[in-house]
Order: sequence, then C-alpha cells, then structure tokens
Amino acid sequence: MMETKLNNDEYYMKIALSEAKKAFDEGEIPIGAVVVYKDKILARAHNQTELLNDCTAHAEMLCITGAMNEAGTKYLRNCTLYVTLEPCVMCAGALNWAQIGRLVYAASDVKCGYSQTGDLLHKSTIVEHGLMASEAESLLKEFFRKLRAK
Amino acid sequence: MMETKLNNDEYYMKIALSEAKKAFDEGEIPIGAVVVYKDKILARAHNQTELLNDCTAHAEMLCITGAMNEAGTKYLRNCTLYVTLEPCVMCAGALNWAQIGRLVYAASDVKCGYSQTGDLLHKSTIVEHGLMASEAESLLKEFFRKLRAK
Repeated sequence: MMETKLNNDEYYMKIALSEAKKAFDEGEIPIGAVVVYKDKILARAHNQTELLNDCTAHAEMLCITGAMNEAGTKYLRNCTLYVTLEPCVMCAGALNWAQIGRLVYAASDVKCGYSQTGDLLHKSTIVEHGLMASEAESLLKEFFRKLRAK
Repeated sequence: MMETKLNNDEYYMKIALSEAKKAFDEGEIPIGAVVVYKDKILARAHNQTELLNDCTAHAEMLCITGAMNEAGTKYLRNCTLYVTLEPCVMCAGALNWAQIGRLVYAASDVKCGYSQTGDLLHKSTIVEHGLMASEAESLLKEFFRKLRAK
C-alpha cells in the first residue's frame, strides 16, 4: 500500500512537536509550528522570544513570515498552519491578515488562547484542534516544572 | 524660554506622521509609528507589508521588534508607542506582550481597530488617542483615493 503524506495532519503535527522540542532544549517555551501548502512545508519554526529578545517571536509569527517569504505572497489562503498550542491574540490577528486556509492546533490555551477573546480569525479559516494535545501539553508542563525548580 | 521635547506628544506624533508619509511615497498604506523611552527614540518605522510581502510588517510590529532590539529587553513597560492609526488586533496583541507603558494613536480605525474587539492591551497600559487625527486620516484618504483612481 502506498503511503502518502498528503493531508496527513499527524505527520505535520509531529514536525511541529519536533520544533517545540528544539525550543525546549534551547530554554524557550516549547511551542512549534509548521506551514504547509499542498504537501510542501513552506516554513517551520519554534518560539524564539528569549534568543531574539523579542516578545513577538512566537513560532506562528516566525512561520507566517517565513512562509510568505518562501511563497512570495502576503496571503496564505490555501495553506495549513499546524501549531502545538492554541495561538494567542497577536498570532490569531496575524493569521487573520494572512487569511490562513486552515489552522490545526494541538493543546488549548485556556489563559492566553485567542478563543478566550472571540473568533479573531478570518471567516474562511477552518479550525481544528486536539490532535496530539497530550504530547504538546506534556512538553509545556515539563518545561514549567523545570523552570520552577530552578 | 527653553524648549523641551520631554513628554512632547505632538513632537513624536509628527515623527510618526513623517514615517507614514514615507510609506505613502513607497506605495504602502500610510501608517507610521515611533517608540520612545525617556525622550529617546528607540525605533521608528512605517508599514512595509508590500515591500516585504509580509502581512505582519505593520509599523507597530516593526517598531516593537526594533525597540526591543535597541533596548535589549523583551518588555517596553516604560515606553510610549505613537502610531498614526489605531492598532489592529495583531498589533494590540504584540503591545500586550510588550506591556507597553503608554499607547498614543492619532486616528481611530472603526473597521480594523483593536477596540472593536475589546480591551486587548495590558492592564497597565495607558491609552490616549485623537492627537493629530485629521492629518493621519487625510493621508490615508488620499492614499486610497489615488489607489481607487488607478
């Protein structure tokens, strides 16, 4: 049977998780993201707020800018963004401007997630969540547990 | 009588407007911003979404990143951001993360301004608006009038 990566959400979420693990190893809050267009990865990134000393350097923001740079367009209408944690208000606002076609996030963020504020995304954006949420949450919990123990 | 720039909002808003004019001349939506800390300009920028092919390259975002880079900190607690148009949801989200001390915007944005969604800013942020709003609005109207005439 032929294996296909096409529309394989788990495949891409695993890549987002591997980005989150990179962040973990670098002492950054472990969140990772990937932007995919027709089975091609346009950008992958992890949170770099500490390294860059920049509160806007979230995985999603770096991924959106990277994907636009790669695609040569300021819209990501037919793209999917996979991210390990529900985007914040800033990132949701950016995804709205990008008119992202589809957003798939793993864990929900009951404190800072955009959905606490309302539906900030573009009306055409399809949203799915919960895929590999426990893996994403475990990584975050482990990070903050270690941080508190310091 | 000694002139002082200290706390001179009009002085800094004029600089934000001069940034907006640069954007106008470059065919970008004319919005400009400045971040000031203790009478020192940490960053000034104008909208560059077209040039950079990046929907996140708003004047405020470029200014926030620039100011953090200049200040070497990922918070802008004692800074003022001057911007010629009310920030959008994305930029308000970024200003929230930055914990900006004070936000002064000229024109209101009844369509895309963050205040349409709610109070997205940090609880400690002081907000003022309306300063030089007519100049900022005129520039935007002229830009869109020319754009439609093309």
